Amino acid sequence: MTTVYNTASSLDGFIATPDHSLEWLLHRDLDPEGPGNHAAFMARVGATLMGASTYTWVAQHAGDDPWAYDVPTWVLTHRAAELEAARPAGWADADIRFVAADDDAAVRALHAEAAAVAGDRDVWVVGGGELAGRLADVGLLDEVVVAYAPVVLGAGAPLLPRHLELALRGVERNADFVVATHAVVRGD
Amino acid sequence: MTTVYNTASSLDGFIATPDHSLEWLLHRDLDPEGPGNHAAFMARVGATLMGASTYTWVAQHAGDDPWAYDVPTWVLTHRAAELEAARPAGWADADIRFVAADDDAAVRALHAEAAAVAGDRDVWVVGGGELAGRLADVGLLDEVVVAYAPVVLGAGAPLLPRHLELALRGVERNADFVVATHAVVRGD
Repeated sequence: MTTVYNTASSLDGFIATPDHSLEWLLHRDLDPEGPGNHAAFMARVGATLMGASTYTWVAQHAGDDPWAYDVPTWVLTHRAAELEAARPAGWADADIRFVAADDDAAVRALHAEAAAVAGDRDVWVVGGGELAGRLADVGLLDEVVVAYAPVVLGAGAPLLPRHLELALRGVERNADFVVATHAVVRGD
Repeated sequence: MTTVYNTASSLDGFIATPDHSLEWLLHRDLDPEGPGNHAAFMARVGATLMGASTYTWVAQHAGDDPWAYDVPTWVLTHRAAELEAARPAGWADADIRFVAADDDAAVRALHAEAAAVAGDRDVWVVGGGELAGRLADVGLLDEVVVAYAPVVLGAGAPLLPRHLELALRGVERNADFVVATHAVVRGD
């Protein structure tokens, strides 16, 4: 079981604009069957973790779309009741679990629960950067996969607001994107 | 003639730590004859442009090293006299030109001067990000080449503090580094 932070980013390390928008990302060209494609990645995922900002953006842009994942998702938030109340109509049956995680022990417990559900499959840290950072803080982040879109944003939500040593595992191009996979290097 | 901002960066888009250090970069593994190597790049460079912070860091870490470039370098600064006085001993004969460039017209004039010297060769924008941004502001930046080191820093000097649309031209791996080349997309 591997815990993977897999995200798209601008070249300058922003995963969303300052107002949480992903519009800069969505019109890019990506081969859905090409290297680093989402379907191949999801085939190895057994549970997902998501921060509240990321979840809120997805929910606000859901329209009539169904919930995208058939594996359980934990959303870290202090606004569980509010997010439940605002759950898009088509997501009633989606396995979305709103949880607070106020300290390292809570992050470890939450991760253990997700890992148990994932079993032999991976835990996907959807984002944002702070959630990935909190997992890294307690030594529970294994991999960082970044799909760089051909744009610099100059400001926005940071990719991973920590100092973290990594080891390059591979890089591939998929249409407009550079997909780089790194392992987290632990200890010093 | 192409004006190229070619720089190393952390995965999260920082080209130096908050205190201008590049120590995080220098111990990485890079094949000097591999893809995107410095010698091959320099063979096509006829002039270089550098911001004051970048120059200051290089000068402070020069020790007994000679100046690295045999093409003219323009350093944008309001502290010309101070930087001249602090010029490392071995750099007396180096072609380093300290100039102020307070507005867009001055940036254009400076670039024209460098481009004339470069002739058929390229102008290398060494950094930092603000200098690359000022050239992009006046439509004079053609290419952005980023060599990503396997580290996230979480804070530091930004890669390119602007919103700028790019087009991916290619990506290569060199040992620890992902080297991505993008063309600047002009107009909308």
